[in-house]
Amino acid sequence: MPELRQNFATKEWVVIATERARRPEQMVQHRERKVIAPFVSSCPFCPGNEGLTPPELLRVPASPDAPWHVRVVPNKFAALSRDVQPTRTVHRSRRTVNGFGAHDVIIETPDHSQILALMPDSYVAEILRVYKTRYDELSLDPRVAHITIFKNHGPDAGTSLEHPHSQLVATPVISHQVRERFQHAMRHYDDYGECMFCQMIEEELQDESRIVMVSEHFVAMELYASPAPFCTHIYPRRHMASFGDVGAAEINDLSRVLRTLLAKLYHGLADPDFNFTIRSAPAENVGVKYFHWYLSIIPRLTRVAGFELGSGMFINTVLPEAAAEFLRKVDAEAAGTAVAGS
Amino acid sequence: MPELRQNFATKEWVVIATERARRPEQMVQHRERKVIAPFVSSCPFCPGNEGLTPPELLRVPASPDAPWHVRVVPNKFAALSRDVQPTRTVHRSRRTVNGFGAHDVIIETPDHSQILALMPDSYVAEILRVYKTRYDELSLDPRVAHITIFKNHGPDAGTSLEHPHSQLVATPVISHQVRERFQHAMRHYDDYGECMFCQMIEEELQDESRIVMVSEHFVAMELYASPAPFCTHIYPRRHMASFGDVGAAEINDLSRVLRTLLAKLYHGLADPDFNFTIRSAPAENVGVKYFHWYLSIIPRLTRVAGFELGSGMFINTVLPEAAAEFLRKVDAEAAGTAVAGS
Repeated sequence: MPELRQNFATKEWVVIATERARRPEQMVQHRERKVIAPFVSSCPFCPGNEGLTPPELLRVPASPDAPWHVRVVPNKFAALSRDVQPTRTVHRSRRTVNGFGAHDVIIETPDHSQILALMPDSYVAEILRVYKTRYDELSLDPRVAHITIFKNHGPDAGTSLEHPHSQLVATPVISHQVRERFQHAMRHYDDYGECMFCQMIEEELQDESRIVMVSEHFVAMELYASPAPFCTHIYPRRHMASFGDVGAAEINDLSRVLRTLLAKLYHGLADPDFNFTIRSAPAENVGVKYFHWYLSIIPRLTRVAGFELGSGMFINTVLPEAAAEFLRKVDAEAAGTAVAGS
Repeated sequence: MPELRQNFATKEWVVIATERARRPEQMVQHRERKVIAPFVSSCPFCPGNEGLTPPELLRVPASPDAPWHVRVVPNKFAALSRDVQPTRTVHRSRRTVNGFGAHDVIIETPDHSQILALMPDSYVAEILRVYKTRYDELSLDPRVAHITIFKNHGPDAGTSLEHPHSQLVATPVISHQVRERFQHAMRHYDDYGECMFCQMIEEELQDESRIVMVSEHFVAMELYASPAPFCTHIYPRRHMASFGDVGAAEINDLSRVLRTLLAKLYHGLADPDFNFTIRSAPAENVGVKYFHWYLSIIPRLTRVAGFELGSGMFINTVLPEAAAEFLRKVDAEAAGTAVAGS
């Protein structure tokens, strides 16, 4: 029997389509991945081509003489511009803010062929520390209302450049979706005196069926009303509204959890295209008791079609409990791209 | 200078990325479309294979002896089931409704190779009348809360079957997104005493720059804060909350407007993959003064990536005014798939 489930935090309904259900291993896309070279002379993110990017915002290690591990540069084709004051205009039904914003590219490694899932945890921690440095710096800019950190891996996830990189976009407005989710979270806090995410995390830890992994500081799980197969959320176990609140030990722990999950997807689902994104409180809401930041990994195994576009509801063809069980079993340290269960 | 624009009806912000902007004609995807045969012996929707679908719900013309033009059958792989009573359960953070619902497939033509954009208007009108008949019938079922009608054209739009068809899904819940947009519309009405869509349509008709076409009963336009290139909305010019309110003359007029727009996309953008969907008031809100139904056509020319998934904001690389001007100029009656401007 199919079932509709409601996301506790967002109120969104998802159709868990058991009649069309697929076993987790049926979601593996058997396709040729082309062999990628570690250095591509025309790639603007490869070492030696630093002059092809706009001037660097950050480099790790900081010394200009040492070979870099991670670089941050402004996006050459930025969707938004740093050089203006955000100004809002309202003319009847037409509402506009001029395009102030920051659009960073975080070049994750000099190695064109490397991928996060197979990097050492300590290297992933360097990248996450860079996220936090840029997040903290941009949060101080009074023109910035909200910051989104994200990564696109593979063409179905919208990557245009092959070299491993993530992005950060700071906007002068808070999106309607974010604002609206905040209002739910605040109402829940006002009704029950607790963070709705903290409550949900506690219940899921008791239930266990949707938990993928638990570390000292984080828990990774499939949502009860997961909108898509293998969409996996990582929540800090202590209450924290903003990614900017994360501590040094927590970053190290997060790097291990994130890297392990990406490796489970890589080995278990044959390197699927995916996005991940950090959903954090807007700058003006740092420290609130009712919101909880999280990192969401969204493998792009299915296509959004007319039903989703027309109704705002998603159809998920893999039971979240089955996806969690599958991911728990995948050996994150396996060699190659062996498919679990095959 | 890039610009953020807010959708008046949904409150969603869109980045109009003029720095990355593309001229409309640059959005044409030059690709091989395979030649499609008018009859495919293994296709469950082709004539002679009627026994491969579940029993028919509707046929046009009604006579079982005449060759059919349009057939409606339950989706064999329905996401939801007709045979249950919707029952809601709430267990702390876990909220569920069992999977009651209807999932119709509307087989638009016996011809496997035909496409809506190239059909006679009168044939498209037959299909729209079938939408309305099914919409009206399901609206009477007290278990149905909301009905979404949609079409997926091409693989990037999520089609799994090539034979031309649309779908209708009736759900036992109103999606959070729909509910939330209703609340905005209601608040606007309570504040200003008019339908926000009627206001927006009137302003756009005065402004003209985003209008693609106007008929006796409908207006087709790019939204001021259009979330994607060439996303085109068709609104009834008189106030109507529900698609079920549309009259016979209006259906005929709509078929001409819809077919013309699809032909403009087909000729102008070389048969892009697209979805369309009818966004109508939930069954319990028929007749409200504050909501306005519309048909939304969404060409699938760009990919949703991490920024959109993480922020709920979209980036549109084609200026809505430029898209409207481009579509106005495309000859909907052109032969072949000649590209305007090339």
